[in-house]
Amino acid sequence: MNFSSDNVAGIAPEILAAITAANAGKDASYGEDAVSARLERRVAEVFEHEVVVFPVATGTAANALALASLVPPWGTVYCHAEAHIVVDECGAPEFYTGGARMAAIEAPHGKIGAGDLARLLPGGKGIVHHMQPAAVSLTQASEAGTVYRSAEIAAIAEIAKKHGLALHMDGARFANAVAFLGCAPADLTWRAGVDALSFGATKNGAAAAEAVIFFDRAKAAEFAFRRKRGGHLFSKMRFLSAQLEAYVADELWLRNARHANAMAARLGEGLQAVPGARLRHPVEANEVFVELPEPVIDGLLGQGFQFYRWVGNCVRLVTAFDTEGEEVEALIAAARGLAGVGAAPGNVSSPL
Amino acid sequence: MNFSSDNVAGIAPEILAAITAANAGKDASYGEDAVSARLERRVAEVFEHEVVVFPVATGTAANALALASLVPPWGTVYCHAEAHIVVDECGAPEFYTGGARMAAIEAPHGKIGAGDLARLLPGGKGIVHHMQPAAVSLTQASEAGTVYRSAEIAAIAEIAKKHGLALHMDGARFANAVAFLGCAPADLTWRAGVDALSFGATKNGAAAAEAVIFFDRAKAAEFAFRRKRGGHLFSKMRFLSAQLEAYVADELWLRNARHANAMAARLGEGLQAVPGARLRHPVEANEVFVELPEPVIDGLLGQGFQFYRWVGNCVRLVTAFDTEGEEVEALIAAARGLAGVGAAPGNVSSPL
Amino acid sequence: MNFSSDNVAGIAPEILAAITAANAGKDASYGEDAVSARLERRVAEVFEHEVVVFPVATGTAANALALASLVPPWGTVYCHAEAHIVVDECGAPEFYTGGARMAAIEAPHGKIGAGDLARLLPGGKGIVHHMQPAAVSLTQASEAGTVYRSAEIAAIAEIAKKHGLALHMDGARFANAVAFLGCAPADLTWRAGVDALSFGATKNGAAAAEAVIFFDRAKAAEFAFRRKRGGHLFSKMRFLSAQLEAYVADELWLRNARHANAMAARLGEGLQAVPGARLRHPVEANEVFVELPEPVIDGLLGQGFQFYRWVGNCVRLVTAFDTEGEEVEALIAAARGLAGVGAAPGNVSSPL
Amino acid sequence: MNFSSDNVAGIAPEILAAITAANAGKDASYGEDAVSARLERRVAEVFEHEVVVFPVATGTAANALALASLVPPWGTVYCHAEAHIVVDECGAPEFYTGGARMAAIEAPHGKIGAGDLARLLPGGKGIVHHMQPAAVSLTQASEAGTVYRSAEIAAIAEIAKKHGLALHMDGARFANAVAFLGCAPADLTWRAGVDALSFGATKNGAAAAEAVIFFDRAKAAEFAFRRKRGGHLFSKMRFLSAQLEAYVADELWLRNARHANAMAARLGEGLQAVPGARLRHPVEANEVFVELPEPVIDGLLGQGFQFYRWVGNCVRLVTAFDTEGEEVEALIAAARGLAGVGAAPGNVSSPL
Repeated sequence: MNFSSDNVAGIAPEILAAITAANAGKDASYGEDAVSARLERRVAEVFEHEVVVFPVATGTAANALALASLVPPWGTVYCHAEAHIVVDECGAPEFYTGGARMAAIEAPHGKIGAGDLARLLPGGKGIVHHMQPAAVSLTQASEAGTVYRSAEIAAIAEIAKKHGLALHMDGARFANAVAFLGCAPADLTWRAGVDALSFGATKNGAAAAEAVIFFDRAKAAEFAFRRKRGGHLFSKMRFLSAQLEAYVADELWLRNARHANAMAARLGEGLQAVPGARLRHPVEANEVFVELPEPVIDGLLGQGFQFYRWVGNCVRLVTAFDTEGEEVEALIAAARGLAGVGAAPGNVSSPL
Repeated sequence: MNFSSDNVAGIAPEILAAITAANAGKDASYGEDAVSARLERRVAEVFEHEVVVFPVATGTAANALALASLVPPWGTVYCHAEAHIVVDECGAPEFYTGGARMAAIEAPHGKIGAGDLARLLPGGKGIVHHMQPAAVSLTQASEAGTVYRSAEIAAIAEIAKKHGLALHMDGARFANAVAFLGCAPADLTWRAGVDALSFGATKNGAAAAEAVIFFDRAKAAEFAFRRKRGGHLFSKMRFLSAQLEAYVADELWLRNARHANAMAARLGEGLQAVPGARLRHPVEANEVFVELPEPVIDGLLGQGFQFYRWVGNCVRLVTAFDTEGEEVEALIAAARGLAGVGAAPGNVSSPL
Repeated sequence: MNFSSDNVAGIAPEILAAITAANAGKDASYGEDAVSARLERRVAEVFEHEVVVFPVATGTAANALALASLVPPWGTVYCHAEAHIVVDECGAPEFYTGGARMAAIEAPHGKIGAGDLARLLPGGKGIVHHMQPAAVSLTQASEAGTVYRSAEIAAIAEIAKKHGLALHMDGARFANAVAFLGCAPADLTWRAGVDALSFGATKNGAAAAEAVIFFDRAKAAEFAFRRKRGGHLFSKMRFLSAQLEAYVADELWLRNARHANAMAARLGEGLQAVPGARLRHPVEANEVFVELPEPVIDGLLGQGFQFYRWVGNCVRLVTAFDTEGEEVEALIAAARGLAGVGAAPGNVSSPL
Repeated sequence: MNFSSDNVAGIAPEILAAITAANAGKDASYGEDAVSARLERRVAEVFEHEVVVFPVATGTAANALALASLVPPWGTVYCHAEAHIVVDECGAPEFYTGGARMAAIEAPHGKIGAGDLARLLPGGKGIVHHMQPAAVSLTQASEAGTVYRSAEIAAIAEIAKKHGLALHMDGARFANAVAFLGCAPADLTWRAGVDALSFGATKNGAAAAEAVIFFDRAKAAEFAFRRKRGGHLFSKMRFLSAQLEAYVADELWLRNARHANAMAARLGEGLQAVPGARLRHPVEANEVFVELPEPVIDGLLGQGFQFYRWVGNCVRLVTAFDTEGEEVEALIAAARGLAGVGAAPGNVSSPL
């Protein structure tokens, strides 16, 4: 059973069906097709705001291209020290921006606060010797599996705007954040001050599809050129757009995320009852970071459960749209067994 | 009926089936999956040589990343003036190489010759004021729908090697070239001196899949980092690899290309019999460039046939794996009718 | 006697004196000094227009930084095929712009015409597959030693503006052009539609000093950051500014250029009277391109005259502010002797 | 009296004399001149090792170009959090390297230790998601006015080499470090494992001259192209080389540095005797960081002394080759007066 990542999951059946359906006959290339023509309107409905939508295939491309639209080559992007853009993209943001700097901020539970930002700004703004503060990037849900509340985002946005910084959101797991809070997507984005969103679908059921969403058309003006020269403009675009259309249709994205979140919540609940266990972060999305006794970790790996170790006898367990309750219960039971206690009391039930 | 491009076609059924088959259960991400593990060996068999294979999703990414592996930022890449890398990629090669120059060579029928190259080299090699000759890029099949013979490639390679230049092949339509010549893929690549091949599948039946193939492991050393920071490393890589595996299985790539070529050959044959028509280039792959009387062009467009105009009352017609003989005959018949002559004598028959 | 280039000359005495004078005591760094404070006003007077002035030390830096301020990374810069930016800067414009393309236009006598530009534009403007026409760069005086007239520049500017392109002037030998035409510097720049000028001093008497001059403050907004991150902001800026201040004081720049031009004019006049000689280009600035019989060329080199060979038994002879009439006469006499004719009739006299 | 920086000083008389001397007649450009021909040998003698020397005009250019030669675009450069390359170059290293990352390490007194580095390495080496550890850059003397001992450098080099990292030294104040330790330049560079040195002269008497010195010819192979395309190859190179030749002749560089160091030492000694004063860092080179009572700081500024405030009622005072003992004594006396105590006991004496 594989809890390594949400990207070990396959394609959600609704999305695979949409790819298949889009395969009927010929259609125009490079986004001039019928599916792509519908997509922007659908996304606008979901976000209750005019949007400009650019489908790409990877989250790294989405983030790097979005940031390149927001900051100059001598810009500084403030983000959490564990942010994907600083840790896991091999310098893609630096590459696409032409050399901007990702300024990593240490803060608890994967989330930076308005106070962190306030301490750093204006940060040399206008002084030619220094790189220029240019954007803030928030990861929603965070790399610690936690979720920024709307008011937290708005407070950060306020400071950012005051100093002329743009606000980007890495929403590789945006669905999980919305599902957790039960709020409108708008509440976590443009209403709170977000300028551009990397709207992830791959981790939540797509084969390979993300959308960069701008809420301000002016900021999107150069994106099409940047995407093309990055090699991210698909000739058979309809197969990217079809994934995204199916993703937002009938709230599939939220249903998938609710399921993954429920699986994680149950996992967190079950594991923290294991003797010696301690949740490192609140479980708010589809990731569980839990410290476990070393013999329990070793035992689980020995029994074939797959997941990553984190620093300090901590493990990360990630659930997805297709994680089954039986898998979760099996892992909890195994951990309990390894810790020398009996079967767990509760039981998982998906809200779907 | 749409002859605009081979990228208006959909996904070949065998490839869509492979995507679906790859969707069984979870699998490791970023290329550590079972399908990806098999792919390199399959490609090595096709090319009769050890290879390093990097799947990406677009031809622009394949070309730009391959070139970035072969030339320094101050390098010059010699290519035909109509090459995709110089005309149609919005500067992606410049972006990925960090500023290299695409030196466009005018030459007939889309193909540069060894003599063109000999005239340009050594071209300032070693002089610090000048950009440094670094690579040659050949488009196979060419943008004019013609095909480089093995000996032509070898002659170019000889001059390139003599001056220390690498040899890249943009094989977005490589299948069509191999199908036309009926030779081994090796004959057009490493045996003739090619260092790296952008092996296209998208135009010939894939949804979005290309492979950058290196025949020399040393030249591939940095590619993985370049791909990742370009945002072209897919988390659910198995769905890229599955397309490519199906593409080379049972010679699907060649069967598809033979069909497209046959459709183009018939189209060329039929159209050049239209009064006032003249083929601008030999029809060797899946593209027909034909000069037609303006009323015929206008009439065809008016009847709903889709294709692009080229300079000087010329049109480009592109066939694909799914072009049907009826479509081809319909277009020929319509052209004949517009030119005031009767039905065409011959008839298309796919060699499949 | 060295006619290789105007950069084999040393420092004009007035400029060396200014460097020495600027060395009195301490002064603020990075351009906050007293000399730099005066410079912008002095240049504004010379150009009869508000300007923003950025001193740098090399012409390559001036050109590359200026172009980077005018075009996006996916922009195309149209220029003559012999332009320094395309031939002699090892890709500096590509580097500073982040990958823009120098589109080389072949045209007689080193000068492109409005018609050349009109044929190339709009050139794919707005189409995402193509690099975007973004600027024109004119070399004044040209690499062929010829000079654009004000009306020629204005005609090019008109087409450029019509299509939204910026107009840059590489004025490494701007002084020679102004001296030749005897017009106001304004006539060849902002009045004719030039947006940014690389105003050269090094070839005309400075040790190492050029100024990038913007006639529109808005276009200069990012320049200071680009200069700093290019490593071209001098800490002891006063020594750069002092060179430029002395250069424009008392018309030193024009006096030096007039002298160099007169030397070249005499050289051209004298050499074209040599049997078998032919001027390849009109001699308008400080460069003479003259075809000579091979024995004459070999003989001159054998006698120790220094100059570069050009393609096709042509040589380039460059004069500078410190070229002496005796040197010019000696070369003419030597050429005549080698061609088997007697001493030349005329004699050079500097207009100074 | 100006203690703001060592770059508010002018040109040392010996260096200005060398510029003047180099101005006799014409000489070849771009480094083919007689002075440049001598320079490499002179530097090799100073460093007791074969070297490749590239003169440039600014420290930022020297650092950025050196790092670009040592690391790939996806490389990480470890350096102190106060290093010039991370704080004061507006992203020049990111620009020249094509996007590498400066990883800032917090450590006391401006110096990182081998232990700091050991904790960070191997740091994701070989993992495609992460930027790749590629180099260490040490600032000698440091931004805190302290000096790395030879053994400290060697310990850092050992860990760097173990993990395949190159070792760069930002020697903008290298002379001050050598002067302080009284050791051989070799002891602080190649003997301790340094691969490339930015050898500063500007802060210590040059107008604008630094040399990038490689101790391994192989690492210098691409430098000339990088320098040219950065716009840092001077046409009248002799005036750069002449500054550097004079700088190392007759130990001028060390004499100037010894004087500046002595002035700083006296300043530190005198100021720490002021009531309420505390030296923040040991005074080892030509910078004094001293915490002073706010009224003393305000008073000094009010009396016209020029220097920068640092965080936390600390000021930075920088001395140079031309700082006079009277200036130092005046500042000390003023500080004492402002603190309500009498004249200082000691007196400065330059070792020259």
